[in-house]
Amino acid sequence: MKSNLYIVIVGCGRVGSHLADRLSREGHAVVVIDWKESTFEALAPEFSGFRIQGDATHMAVLKQAKLSKADVLIATTHEDNVNLMVAQVALRVFNVEKVMARVFDPRREQVYERLGIETICPTSVAAEMFLRLIGGGKVPLRENEP
Amino acid sequence: MKSNLYIVIVGCGRVGSHLADRLSREGHAVVVIDWKESTFEALAPEFSGFRIQGDATHMAVLKQAKLSKADVLIATTHEDNVNLMVAQVALRVFNVEKVMARVFDPRREQVYERLGIETICPTSVAAEMFLRLIGGGKVPLRENEP
Repeated sequence: MKSNLYIVIVGCGRVGSHLADRLSREGHAVVVIDWKESTFEALAPEFSGFRIQGDATHMAVLKQAKLSKADVLIATTHEDNVNLMVAQVALRVFNVEKVMARVFDPRREQVYERLGIETICPTSVAAEMFLRLIGGGKVPLRENEP
Repeated sequence: MKSNLYIVIVGCGRVGSHLADRLSREGHAVVVIDWKESTFEALAPEFSGFRIQGDATHMAVLKQAKLSKADVLIATTHEDNVNLMVAQVALRVFNVEKVMARVFDPRREQVYERLGIETICPTSVAAEMFLRLIGGGKVPLRENEP
């Protein structure tokens, strides 16, 4: 991973806060956005990035986060629609090079991918992992992996 | 995977219903339990297993599901506490051989594992996958995998 990336994370839930802490510890510049102020309490005390309390579907909030300077945008709120919208705006309006989104509904995964958004679907992954565990094997990520 | 397993799934959300459909299609006997009747609508029309509407933390409901005959129990509700409780009862009271649970809080993962419950933590997995994507690689499941 290139060091000193500028990374904007939307959603400070378990996944968002974990990523923010980890990436900030690794020396990247991190901005985390959540509409709910209290979610920032999940961040480690040593988190050295910026917190923005606001609705990431508003352009003003994304501008405040200096999204046009970002190398990476990660949309990981609990709302698929919000993640899709923020990811598209990051890609098309702010020209962010690497745009990733969490998507809970597996049926939407392909739509995202077609739009150029890298997606992670915990639903498919969890289901696949359970199936592998039942089979007695270890748990690779996707069916087509060994 | 052995065929004709008797599999009890607790929680008929996205992951639970996907697993129930898939495992039933593969020829296993599947019972799915959820306290909310409407969640069963997520099951495919061809789902050939049983649906039990009830609270899986009640022994009577687990008995109704004939849990003592089950080869596999999968606890995949949205409540870590419910999953832990059901998994423990399946393991200790009903002597189910293979007990798996979804756990959202990564800090609980090790506790579960110590109790003999195989766990899947979508939170850790999603975070790890995002980190790998940032690094530009493909997305293995755990840090110590290639």
